[in-house]
Amino acid sequence: VVTASSGNHGMACAYAAGETRVPLTVYVPAGASALKLEKIKSFGARVIQVEGDCLQAEIQARADAQNNNKRYISPYNDLQVMAGQGTIGRELLTEGQTLDAVFISVGGGGLIGGVGAWLRQHSPHTRIYGCWPENAPAMGHCLERGEIGEVDESDTLSDGTAGGVEPGAVTFDVCKQVIDEHVYVPEHAIAKHIQQFARRERMIIEGAAAVAVAALEQRAPNLKGKRVAAILCGRNIAFDTLMQVLNN
Amino acid sequence: VVTASSGNHGMACAYAAGETRVPLTVYVPAGASALKLEKIKSFGARVIQVEGDCLQAEIQARADAQNNNKRYISPYNDLQVMAGQGTIGRELLTEGQTLDAVFISVGGGGLIGGVGAWLRQHSPHTRIYGCWPENAPAMGHCLERGEIGEVDESDTLSDGTAGGVEPGAVTFDVCKQVIDEHVYVPEHAIAKHIQQFARRERMIIEGAAAVAVAALEQRAPNLKGKRVAAILCGRNIAFDTLMQVLNN
Repeated sequence: VVTASSGNHGMACAYAAGETRVPLTVYVPAGASALKLEKIKSFGARVIQVEGDCLQAEIQARADAQNNNKRYISPYNDLQVMAGQGTIGRELLTEGQTLDAVFISVGGGGLIGGVGAWLRQHSPHTRIYGCWPENAPAMGHCLERGEIGEVDESDTLSDGTAGGVEPGAVTFDVCKQVIDEHVYVPEHAIAKHIQQFARRERMIIEGAAAVAVAALEQRAPNLKGKRVAAILCGRNIAFDTLMQVLNN
Repeated sequence: VVTASSGNHGMACAYAAGETRVPLTVYVPAGASALKLEKIKSFGARVIQVEGDCLQAEIQARADAQNNNKRYISPYNDLQVMAGQGTIGRELLTEGQTLDAVFISVGGGGLIGGVGAWLRQHSPHTRIYGCWPENAPAMGHCLERGEIGEVDESDTLSDGTAGGVEPGAVTFDVCKQVIDEHVYVPEHAIAKHIQQFARRERMIIEGAAAVAVAALEQRAPNLKGKRVAAILCGRNIAFDTLMQVLNN
């Protein structure tokens, strides 16, 4: 089996492959966090680091699978992967109370696609906010243009969502249907919420998770009295990055 | 209702009191972490900081309750509190596999008393390690002497377990029956495991939790091939302390 991932999907696949003793190769982008690579390797998977972003890793992983007759698992361009991530939507509703809004960080669109599809069906009034760093808004800008294409990106604390969208991605149409509003947040807001989570909640969260919280804060004035969720989609921030943020 | 606590018990009581709208006063020792005091206040409880350690806080809280006809809830010297903490023992066994050893940090002895009582009944072969910082070994030394009394203590990262034991504490006899072995760990080992948990697991743990992990590491050579647990009994470390440890 072959996959591509900036980290968390690769870790999940590597864990599953380790448990089922299936040989796995994970293609990762140049900027992937060292911790994530270490964890992937610790589960016994092979890691191949490629030049460029996630999309480059996906293209090479897919080519490897095609040339060598292996199975490719996309980190988001796969209805079953999306459906798996959608179980978080189900979980959000099991609290038994109404949910007025949810903030979800968007990379390839699998998480928001899956969660959004569930919520559209089971809680149609829930407003779904797609959240991006200003520095890496790929799917957001593609949706605004109406088609998948190149989007300029620069460095972001949200390495977990950065990178272009694969041409023909099944997530594109789902995102178009489920996202009500786009929110873009600056890097300083992402850093602020990584720090606040450590200070107030004693939780380490990665940049992609802080994007959703920063977006919630940005829109909070419109959400007084509402029941709102933000999905904390990972904690695997590079330790050096964490310390830079916390010491600031 | 009145209680006394170095922090986590006070937070738990304050949460419960807030939910049930019962007025609560929490007596805390001089060295209690600022974060814990903030959290206790945020649930609506009144906080009174006293000179001295936990035992002093307990004595004053009990006096307040007696003089003003209020109900006093000891953080450990109470069979029901101990039984509540013992539910962790039940949880440890629900994994369905055998448990050969468990490492538990000891302050007043409520946690290890409750968990130990459950394990003695339901998993008699599980070896129970009582864990202390070398700098704050109160209950450990009392047990070794055979009676509750004064024990010299100095500063420790494990503020959650520091402080003397109340004369007549019901935990003393329970600890005598359930603890198989005493383990004492130096401050540098506590610091090391706070840092490693942040680096490798992306989890913030407080000193008292790191004491159990440091003790496990100390005894690891004797436990090869065994199924072993350490209880992570809190994450409410003062942020400044956390940053000092992580920057070292």
